[in-house]
Amino acid sequence: MLDHINELPDWISRGLDDLFPNDNSGDSDQSFLKRLELSSVDKKPLRVKLGIDPTGTDIHIGHSILFRKLRAFQDAGHTAILIIGDFTARIGDPTGKSKTRIQLSKDEVQSNALNYLEQLGLGKDPKDSLLDFSIPSRIEIRRNSEWLENLNLSKVIELLSNSTVGQMLAKEDFSNRYKSGTPISLHEFLYPLLQGYDSVAINSDVELGGTDQKFNIAMGRDLQKAFGQKPQFGMLLPILVGLDGARKMSKSLDNIVGINEDSLSMYSKLEKVPDDLVLTYLNLLTNENLKELSSNPREVQKFMALKVTSNFKGIEAAKNAQFNSEKLVLGTKDSLEEIPEASVSNVNFPAKAFYLFSKMEMCSSSSEARRQILGGGVRIDGKKIMDPNLEFHTPDDLIGKILQVGKKKFLRVST
Amino acid sequence: MLDHINELPDWISRGLDDLFPNDNSGDSDQSFLKRLELSSVDKKPLRVKLGIDPTGTDIHIGHSILFRKLRAFQDAGHTAILIIGDFTARIGDPTGKSKTRIQLSKDEVQSNALNYLEQLGLGKDPKDSLLDFSIPSRIEIRRNSEWLENLNLSKVIELLSNSTVGQMLAKEDFSNRYKSGTPISLHEFLYPLLQGYDSVAINSDVELGGTDQKFNIAMGRDLQKAFGQKPQFGMLLPILVGLDGARKMSKSLDNIVGINEDSLSMYSKLEKVPDDLVLTYLNLLTNENLKELSSNPREVQKFMALKVTSNFKGIEAAKNAQFNSEKLVLGTKDSLEEIPEASVSNVNFPAKAFYLFSKMEMCSSSSEARRQILGGGVRIDGKKIMDPNLEFHTPDDLIGKILQVGKKKFLRVST
Repeated sequence: MLDHINELPDWISRGLDDLFPNDNSGDSDQSFLKRLELSSVDKKPLRVKLGIDPTGTDIHIGHSILFRKLRAFQDAGHTAILIIGDFTARIGDPTGKSKTRIQLSKDEVQSNALNYLEQLGLGKDPKDSLLDFSIPSRIEIRRNSEWLENLNLSKVIELLSNSTVGQMLAKEDFSNRYKSGTPISLHEFLYPLLQGYDSVAINSDVELGGTDQKFNIAMGRDLQKAFGQKPQFGMLLPILVGLDGARKMSKSLDNIVGINEDSLSMYSKLEKVPDDLVLTYLNLLTNENLKELSSNPREVQKFMALKVTSNFKGIEAAKNAQFNSEKLVLGTKDSLEEIPEASVSNVNFPAKAFYLFSKMEMCSSSSEARRQILGGGVRIDGKKIMDPNLEFHTPDDLIGKILQVGKKKFLRVST
Repeated sequence: MLDHINELPDWISRGLDDLFPNDNSGDSDQSFLKRLELSSVDKKPLRVKLGIDPTGTDIHIGHSILFRKLRAFQDAGHTAILIIGDFTARIGDPTGKSKTRIQLSKDEVQSNALNYLEQLGLGKDPKDSLLDFSIPSRIEIRRNSEWLENLNLSKVIELLSNSTVGQMLAKEDFSNRYKSGTPISLHEFLYPLLQGYDSVAINSDVELGGTDQKFNIAMGRDLQKAFGQKPQFGMLLPILVGLDGARKMSKSLDNIVGINEDSLSMYSKLEKVPDDLVLTYLNLLTNENLKELSSNPREVQKFMALKVTSNFKGIEAAKNAQFNSEKLVLGTKDSLEEIPEASVSNVNFPAKAFYLFSKMEMCSSSSEARRQILGGGVRIDGKKIMDPNLEFHTPDDLIGKILQVGKKKFLRVST
């Protein structure tokens, strides 16, 4: 399928699972290379669409694959168009037949969206974030309620008339449900058309998506043609396999690495992914040259963990995490995941070390804590602390770190 | 299916093909008799819905079956709600895949609707018309653009979520098309829901329709329940078989009797319908007692033709038509249909007889016409005329009548 993929610049082709259409003709509606050239000749950046579902808030490294590709377009001078699906999130699924769609209030959606954008780097230096929010011509944030909220019935009918029952039932998930007799509510047929109409509304040149998005992205292309626009290209990226090495990375499967996790946690998880995922992670989550890797698999794994962590946390934090992970004296614990988490919400800051370890109930009293510290039995992230009066100013000084007393007591600090 | 039909008053049960639901429980949502009683106790007339498609303009006697039932409700004190499907007529079928739906302009729809209402009796004495427009509490004329034009996407999604793909594909026409691989455009699934939503918008108690409307009327019932209303009953009436005795009466099949036809034409057509339709026509198009008919089939046929014509044209005109039909000397002509039509548009009124027959080219000149009249060879509707100077004041004095010269020349006057 990806015949002419090598003709594309590496920043585009890297990790790509599918590009459609993918014709090497001279037609800029059929050949992506031509569309790219046209953009360059006309000095008109490509409009690159990516949809965000604001029902969830935690971004994991699986999501980041798409944002990394979007960022690559930004860095090449093109415009990233983030579509926040606020309308569809607010509508949710009125039948309640699907458990995955939850109806959200306007405020919840707004707050989720802001949270999401902040995780992507809104307000941050672009060199420390997934997307570049600093150059106005390279980012456009749109909410689909802009054009969907007041879409009237005539327009809905026009949209619906662009597809047939047969086309919808050829879509894999609908097809399986129809064959098995599981009811498909009629409004579910509308969602691919609405997502497609987003492409019309923003006049996109490319839409990015996971491999499960082919149908919806192709629908956008069809609708753009029906509405007299130049049709978008679809760029599909793989769906990342999670830490279990088997299923797609998903919060509900508890096999994720969140981009908000602390660097030690991120590094430690990555360092232990199944061997056959290491190259995939390197390919999809870093820009490293896959031909120049060590021949020692253990070294490659550590290299991957370091580079991926570094992408999200910066090289300093990543190196620190690697160091701590290696130095961490786990005693009788086999793995980091077995360490229980505990919140510092009851601790008053600034907090001295002896008070902290007593308050967190790792020592029976303040005086016991002092004794343990002075006796050399207390560590934070594997590093011995010797001063009972060592002061922690805010929870951020501790969150994500591991408190250790003796060889058996461990706690991981959470918010 | 019609188990408890005999418990209903005759004005309701006559001609009924189906009533649903039709339960003799005490529940006014399940038993129509109960709903009727409730209406009487609460002194709240039933709201009886009938939809009109303003893409066509000529009403034929097949349509009149539904209007006659609606009128029976009016005469019993209930409210007829005519829904003019102006929105759907204007939208038409945007794919052009169905040839039957033509997109009309707002003005065309308005003008068709007015024309339609006039044929139903708008502005006329109710005793001479199909419906009673004279008592405000018994008639409500609504256009579905009122509630459909500004229906927003959220509401459309809510509507769509009330039905499933499986339900739609169980509908006979969709099922046949799906099985045969004929494309079904998605918006076609919306129409039954929109028709159903009309019931919600006007809060109907009963919807009348042909037997092909069961699915759509049941959809209205479902939607009313979903919107927290008392659900409507469906009353289905047979679809009239046309003059060919085989297929449903339809303009495109050229087997109709239009209610605007002149009384002679109407009577003559009815007098010749195939024998096995005579009782059906009497049952559906008159209120005559079917148990008190002549034993002579020819007499029954003439009785039916007289009574049906009388319903539309009044008893005087019907009797006249019967008389003329019988007296008409057809000479070598076998049937009325073989007589060519000719327009009086070139005739200047008032017109004298000799001028008329010459101008209509039934005689070679005015003097030839005078001679023929004086010689007793000229008839109008079978009646000899003897005065060459007999004057006709307007085209209406002639339209629908038969001009005859000698035994071979015939013309039927049209507008």
